[in-house]
Amino acid sequence: MISGNPFFLPFIGGHKEPTSLPQIHLSISLTLFLSLSDDETSPRDKQQKNSKGNSDFCIKNIKQADFGRREIEIAEQEMPALMALRKRAQGEKPLAGAKVVGCTHITAQTAVLMETLAALGAQCRWAACNIYSTQNEVAAALAEGGFSVFAWKGESEDDFWWCIDRCVNLEGWQPNMILDDGGDLTHWIYKKYPNMFKKIKGIVEESVTGVHRLYQLSKAGKLCVPAMNVNDSVTKQKFDNLYCCRESILDGLKRTTDVMFGGKQVVVCGYGEVGKGCCAALKAMGSIVYVTEIDPICALQACMDGFRLVKLSEVIRQVDIVITCTGNKNVVVRDYLDRMKNGCIVCNMGHSNTEIDVASLRTPELTWERVRSQVDHVIWPDGKRIVLLAEGRLLNLSCSTVPTFVLSITATTQALALIELYNAPEGRYKQDVYLLPKKMDEYVASLHLPTFDAHLTELTDEQAKYLGLNKNGPFKPNYYR
Amino acid sequence: MISGNPFFLPFIGGHKEPTSLPQIHLSISLTLFLSLSDDETSPRDKQQKNSKGNSDFCIKNIKQADFGRREIEIAEQEMPALMALRKRAQGEKPLAGAKVVGCTHITAQTAVLMETLAALGAQCRWAACNIYSTQNEVAAALAEGGFSVFAWKGESEDDFWWCIDRCVNLEGWQPNMILDDGGDLTHWIYKKYPNMFKKIKGIVEESVTGVHRLYQLSKAGKLCVPAMNVNDSVTKQKFDNLYCCRESILDGLKRTTDVMFGGKQVVVCGYGEVGKGCCAALKAMGSIVYVTEIDPICALQACMDGFRLVKLSEVIRQVDIVITCTGNKNVVVRDYLDRMKNGCIVCNMGHSNTEIDVASLRTPELTWERVRSQVDHVIWPDGKRIVLLAEGRLLNLSCSTVPTFVLSITATTQALALIELYNAPEGRYKQDVYLLPKKMDEYVASLHLPTFDAHLTELTDEQAKYLGLNKNGPFKPNYYR
Amino acid sequence: MISGNPFFLPFIGGHKEPTSLPQIHLSISLTLFLSLSDDETSPRDKQQKNSKGNSDFCIKNIKQADFGRREIEIAEQEMPALMALRKRAQGEKPLAGAKVVGCTHITAQTAVLMETLAALGAQCRWAACNIYSTQNEVAAALAEGGFSVFAWKGESEDDFWWCIDRCVNLEGWQPNMILDDGGDLTHWIYKKYPNMFKKIKGIVEESVTGVHRLYQLSKAGKLCVPAMNVNDSVTKQKFDNLYCCRESILDGLKRTTDVMFGGKQVVVCGYGEVGKGCCAALKAMGSIVYVTEIDPICALQACMDGFRLVKLSEVIRQVDIVITCTGNKNVVVRDYLDRMKNGCIVCNMGHSNTEIDVASLRTPELTWERVRSQVDHVIWPDGKRIVLLAEGRLLNLSCSTVPTFVLSITATTQALALIELYNAPEGRYKQDVYLLPKKMDEYVASLHLPTFDAHLTELTDEQAKYLGLNKNGPFKPNYYR
Amino acid sequence: MISGNPFFLPFIGGHKEPTSLPQIHLSISLTLFLSLSDDETSPRDKQQKNSKGNSDFCIKNIKQADFGRREIEIAEQEMPALMALRKRAQGEKPLAGAKVVGCTHITAQTAVLMETLAALGAQCRWAACNIYSTQNEVAAALAEGGFSVFAWKGESEDDFWWCIDRCVNLEGWQPNMILDDGGDLTHWIYKKYPNMFKKIKGIVEESVTGVHRLYQLSKAGKLCVPAMNVNDSVTKQKFDNLYCCRESILDGLKRTTDVMFGGKQVVVCGYGEVGKGCCAALKAMGSIVYVTEIDPICALQACMDGFRLVKLSEVIRQVDIVITCTGNKNVVVRDYLDRMKNGCIVCNMGHSNTEIDVASLRTPELTWERVRSQVDHVIWPDGKRIVLLAEGRLLNLSCSTVPTFVLSITATTQALALIELYNAPEGRYKQDVYLLPKKMDEYVASLHLPTFDAHLTELTDEQAKYLGLNKNGPFKPNYYR
Repeated sequence: MISGNPFFLPFIGGHKEPTSLPQIHLSISLTLFLSLSDDETSPRDKQQKNSKGNSDFCIKNIKQADFGRREIEIAEQEMPALMALRKRAQGEKPLAGAKVVGCTHITAQTAVLMETLAALGAQCRWAACNIYSTQNEVAAALAEGGFSVFAWKGESEDDFWWCIDRCVNLEGWQPNMILDDGGDLTHWIYKKYPNMFKKIKGIVEESVTGVHRLYQLSKAGKLCVPAMNVNDSVTKQKFDNLYCCRESILDGLKRTTDVMFGGKQVVVCGYGEVGKGCCAALKAMGSIVYVTEIDPICALQACMDGFRLVKLSEVIRQVDIVITCTGNKNVVVRDYLDRMKNGCIVCNMGHSNTEIDVASLRTPELTWERVRSQVDHVIWPDGKRIVLLAEGRLLNLSCSTVPTFVLSITATTQALALIELYNAPEGRYKQDVYLLPKKMDEYVASLHLPTFDAHLTELTDEQAKYLGLNKNGPFKPNYYR
Repeated sequence: MISGNPFFLPFIGGHKEPTSLPQIHLSISLTLFLSLSDDETSPRDKQQKNSKGNSDFCIKNIKQADFGRREIEIAEQEMPALMALRKRAQGEKPLAGAKVVGCTHITAQTAVLMETLAALGAQCRWAACNIYSTQNEVAAALAEGGFSVFAWKGESEDDFWWCIDRCVNLEGWQPNMILDDGGDLTHWIYKKYPNMFKKIKGIVEESVTGVHRLYQLSKAGKLCVPAMNVNDSVTKQKFDNLYCCRESILDGLKRTTDVMFGGKQVVVCGYGEVGKGCCAALKAMGSIVYVTEIDPICALQACMDGFRLVKLSEVIRQVDIVITCTGNKNVVVRDYLDRMKNGCIVCNMGHSNTEIDVASLRTPELTWERVRSQVDHVIWPDGKRIVLLAEGRLLNLSCSTVPTFVLSITATTQALALIELYNAPEGRYKQDVYLLPKKMDEYVASLHLPTFDAHLTELTDEQAKYLGLNKNGPFKPNYYR
Repeated sequence: MISGNPFFLPFIGGHKEPTSLPQIHLSISLTLFLSLSDDETSPRDKQQKNSKGNSDFCIKNIKQADFGRREIEIAEQEMPALMALRKRAQGEKPLAGAKVVGCTHITAQTAVLMETLAALGAQCRWAACNIYSTQNEVAAALAEGGFSVFAWKGESEDDFWWCIDRCVNLEGWQPNMILDDGGDLTHWIYKKYPNMFKKIKGIVEESVTGVHRLYQLSKAGKLCVPAMNVNDSVTKQKFDNLYCCRESILDGLKRTTDVMFGGKQVVVCGYGEVGKGCCAALKAMGSIVYVTEIDPICALQACMDGFRLVKLSEVIRQVDIVITCTGNKNVVVRDYLDRMKNGCIVCNMGHSNTEIDVASLRTPELTWERVRSQVDHVIWPDGKRIVLLAEGRLLNLSCSTVPTFVLSITATTQALALIELYNAPEGRYKQDVYLLPKKMDEYVASLHLPTFDAHLTELTDEQAKYLGLNKNGPFKPNYYR
Repeated sequence: MISGNPFFLPFIGGHKEPTSLPQIHLSISLTLFLSLSDDETSPRDKQQKNSKGNSDFCIKNIKQADFGRREIEIAEQEMPALMALRKRAQGEKPLAGAKVVGCTHITAQTAVLMETLAALGAQCRWAACNIYSTQNEVAAALAEGGFSVFAWKGESEDDFWWCIDRCVNLEGWQPNMILDDGGDLTHWIYKKYPNMFKKIKGIVEESVTGVHRLYQLSKAGKLCVPAMNVNDSVTKQKFDNLYCCRESILDGLKRTTDVMFGGKQVVVCGYGEVGKGCCAALKAMGSIVYVTEIDPICALQACMDGFRLVKLSEVIRQVDIVITCTGNKNVVVRDYLDRMKNGCIVCNMGHSNTEIDVASLRTPELTWERVRSQVDHVIWPDGKRIVLLAEGRLLNLSCSTVPTFVLSITATTQALALIELYNAPEGRYKQDVYLLPKKMDEYVASLHLPTFDAHLTELTDEQAKYLGLNKNGPFKPNYYR
């Protein structure tokens, strides 16, 4: 979720802070944060079995399996692409023999992915990539269904690594595929079980952070298996950023502040895909939108799309809302915050929690007042209030939801990347980081068209020949966006 | 001007048919086509001198120089980027020693480019890349200004190649740079003066056709100098296709048919950049727009942008307007034309004249009636009329104009590509086809920002370090679009 | 909140059902519904005094006054027009001598209105127009401030009328102005204290229902004082309907269902102001929108705005979302519900709870499942689920919020209507229902322009003469919309 | 075509200047102005007969009838509403006995109207309301068809009144209905044949000017027959102003200047229907639009629609395009023109030629240069050029076309107004000016829905009862817009 070059970002990592993770992983609806915590015993101290007597898992409470199953069934209805993959796999099992170790958010949507992988022939062991994001009921349903899941909501750091270790460190079972989200699983195997890579056919990684780590490994010559960067597939990028943010900027602002968009002056910092989505939505709702950019090409696009391109200092005194989407740090610094007008709303749609210099607001003369969940008023000595959302963390992660449809695209892309790496003939992939082949990216898209009752046109033989294309694609060169 | 992969197009060429040229070159307003032709003597049979006694040129009429100079001065006002390049070159002459032979449309905008190249130190000899597109007055002004121009409006095929030959075949002068538009000049040198390539530092080519030829040469191992594909630079593509077509679809339809857009049902075939531009414009004007696509990724984008994705056969009976933007052939065939309703307007925004099967309409039972310039009614036996625009050739080329601003971007890109190839250190470019380096693409964009009074933000040192970027760019990887 | 003629609606009334009230009154954010109820003693059984010893009020708990005061202060910041009225009244007191009895929702925004009336010279006594909508803390702050307020959240029907009676039935105090919202206060005085009308200078009524009652009285020749219909002032209508619904349709759908709008097929029933707002918003978010209409003029507008005009039966099988905005009854009947596809979302933005025939869904073969607050799944025997929002009541009332800015326009209109009626010279208003004079409507608008830093142009003397207008307005005839 | 109250405009009249007529009359495509004039003999000096020997007409050349007939046939295809009226009239002849004298532009569309009136039973005699706007070929076709037409292109002032007189001053024939456009015919009868009004049942007037005259007559107590103001019917207003101008602003600017809209800064003066249309179109094309307004209600709408509301002086130095849509005079005065930047385009969409103070530019230090038809460069001493379009007259009249569909709405409205006045029972209409009854306005709209394949929903009996409406309309009160 950044506007800019995702590959040259410095290391941004850690599993401890949910706020430092790109929002694109998030499948947790807000309501979950309201769920009452159950008992306080650590899952590591419990002995649980599923109804078939299996105990190779560690979760909060196996009794929540039924509730979790229902959540999974609802998610299945909105993930038709994975369900289609299952159907096609009834004959062949493209992942037969695959032993997948995974480390992702554990949500109903992930469960649909895991059960799809199993239907395609894979064995799966799974840990959570974030200490807060596990849906305990879903984890229970998975465990009940026979999956070896090690995850619960509210893990400690020690728990976190313990769970990952339990996934990979098993007598008589060695993974041959890695599905990672953030790079922690990969990192752990590198550190603890480097020999395991001899049998591993590839890594599928979906986060900006994890992809960055892989490119660093590759650059340093230390990547010892092929890796698939699914974060940068066209379909995923467009949906995570442009289309998803076009809706979540409105949703996030409304849920937190009830602000009326009509007539408001807004400055959007950064005109990458996220910025484009935010600007389009707010313009459509009757806001007057200004844009800041560092890249002249994106800047020129902003102009042609009808936005005044300004420096932040030019408009900071007059705007009602400030939105950051740059992927950069310290875009909104104290000096700007000092100059904003009373009631100005400040939020971050871009990246991590670095874009707004929130730390600079922790000074004695400023008063903080929590007015709602995720909404703080920061009050200046003269009474001026700035409305800070999600303490500068990602608004769309904190105050909105990611539609299941978007998660479906991500999960389908992951499944296809696993299939491709697992089945690729020797030599197709070297010890490097690859983008998903264009044709598979197109396939992900095609699996989602029925949702919209959309009817694709097929090339005639004559047309395919004229264009020099295969009738089944790929239809564009790899770099086409 | 195609939606799809420009590199895999079959050979589309020839200088004889203005309709087979991408519309993106066109700088000629329609009114010029109405200008009365002057005397009928062939320029090749005339002896003309400019006011300084120079006669190394061949044009229609040197006396038209004053009028042409005024046209050039007006164009200068709308091409600030080239004027800025001239200013920066007052100290250094990055093209000092360059001997550029060019073959492009000869228009006021080209003149601004040529005079910029001269200001940067280059010598220039120039021919026209199209037998119809020369603005005689501008050619006169260039000749008067000392340029060796060989071009006039209404050349014969023999004239065409004679002019090209006069540019390169000169005692005591050999070109070291080629600026081509369509590949004919390059082709001629390959055929007639292959030895000339020993001294040539590179080719800059801007047309789809010419670029295609170069890739073919490269693939065949026959490309003997570096070539720069400026057609596919980001800035040029976005402006030629998305932004320019967003306006020219409306303009082209209005000028030819005066159709009211509100409430009309329109089907747009192809959702690449051109299709996106057309759809956005028509939707904004109150049309109901359907889209057809072969590529599932573009298809999914159409869905998310709010267009019903259909097969042409589903809507062909109900639509009021059919627009092709595919880059393909036979997209609208006779069978569809038979099923269209009375009054349906059919036009091509995509590519060449192949998309609509116009030949299939030349059958005895159909009557053609020319109702306006560029507008034919094709009448079925039952009285049904189809309104065919520009006989299926490019609407935007035939019935609209290309804004000088768009031409400015093209010309600036060409100038920078020449500078880059001419000054590149040994070894930077091999005998291959290259895209303009990202940084120069960004530079082209930055030179055009002042037109919009747009203010770019600069990275702080800290931010540049955080992002791992140079403060002056490039800001994105090469493949970023 | 209706599309159509508000005056010919049948009687829609009752104070008991919050759902039968137009959403336009609602100033209560959802969060308030979550506030824990305090003690269970009826306020009628309590003896409370404010800090000055005054006990002429009946509210939940005077101790909540501080919290309520803070809410009022926040609301003041977003109601600049009323604050401006207070400032202008520092010299003159246009309501000096006015004794206003009011019956409205009692919220922070109403408090700002009441304190403005007081600042303009009026004495006020107030009851609630809805048994659920009182913000107890705000009522406490008003009581502490010296206002005679009789209202609490969760009144019984008996309480409701008791409170109204306490407002008007007071030894030695008789109202001379009525501010009503729904007509219950007016009704009570007509029924119990008809003689009171001798001293009453006028009624200001803001609800559709109350206005309808007044027109009925007028028609029947029973209206014995002038009444001002503020519901139909231009500014109020545009904001309540078009601008407010443009935002609340998105907000209401997102908060309840997290649905992604992009690519969704939506049918909007009714293309009045509310329908126009809904359609514009959804189209901008990438939905494909169909419209149904009964009125050919609105239908033609829908066409020109780019929407397919259909009968509901034509699209009912294919749409993802059904939205009613007609002001009519039984627009979505069981037959249509039977034909909808699995997962179809059904909601009402129009009027009351009549538009969707919810009663028809209460049959044994259908299962209802409450999945979230305000969200029911209605499940057909074959497993098909329809997602019904707010049980068919107004979505924007139930699942979104009304921005303070919109409430500010309403409150300012009410204040000006009171001033106008109170100060009007004898004979200007007869025993009839009036619209707010155009000039005052314009004045309400002008008081809200500073919020947008908007700068109005003034006519020169010459221009005013040319147009035959007064430089201070009114600028349009009364019927101009 | 004005933003504001059309009724309080001062007298704007005269038939001599096509520029002083509201653009809404114009049905002449630009191409016609290019048609070469034929012989120079005055039609008044010719003796012509049609093929049936009839000579009761005076036109340019009866031999052009065939060509004109073809134009009429094409127009018929785009005026389905009138054709539908003819069909319905096959049984009854609602204008049987009507003797209509008309004075309008004489174009193919008018011919369709006249032939419809004839089909409905009327006898017609017709003159032109503008000395330039007659399509001679159409007049010929009408004469050939038996209509008594007195009109040609290029009449002198004397011709103009002579033609009108020939229509009314006829032995043995007296009109009983007047269809006027501009009021000249009405004026002539008032002046010369006041007794004629005894037999006249009513006047139908469609122009702003003519309507204004009628209101003046009415106010002065001098109107002696009922008059129908069709200019202000809802359907006509929306189409003439909002929907038509949304397209013609783009068309007019492109045809004259080829300007690229993307990124341009534009100020639109006036936010009535015309201004709303212009702003919406330009915003959609990527322009940055500022608005000026005098009316706070329209100003607030501009804010909510996302436009910065400014005074002209705030943005005059920075904008690229200035568009007036106020209906006022001297909106753009010399002082503003002096401050505009080089290349600024100035045009008028609003009203007459008063909005831009063009006279102020006729000073010695400024040079005018005609660069195209309808385009002047006004050059300041320092070289600054302002691009003035149509010399400040209406851009949409001068540089664009009015779609036949819009003219169809006007003509249908006129026909229905004639039917209504002719058939109204004694006493329904007094000697006053009336708007078309709502129900007929709705009927005009409904006749145009089939063009869009739009399907109207019908009320059920139960719904009609609930709403208190007749199932056939009217559906809204008269003042509803």
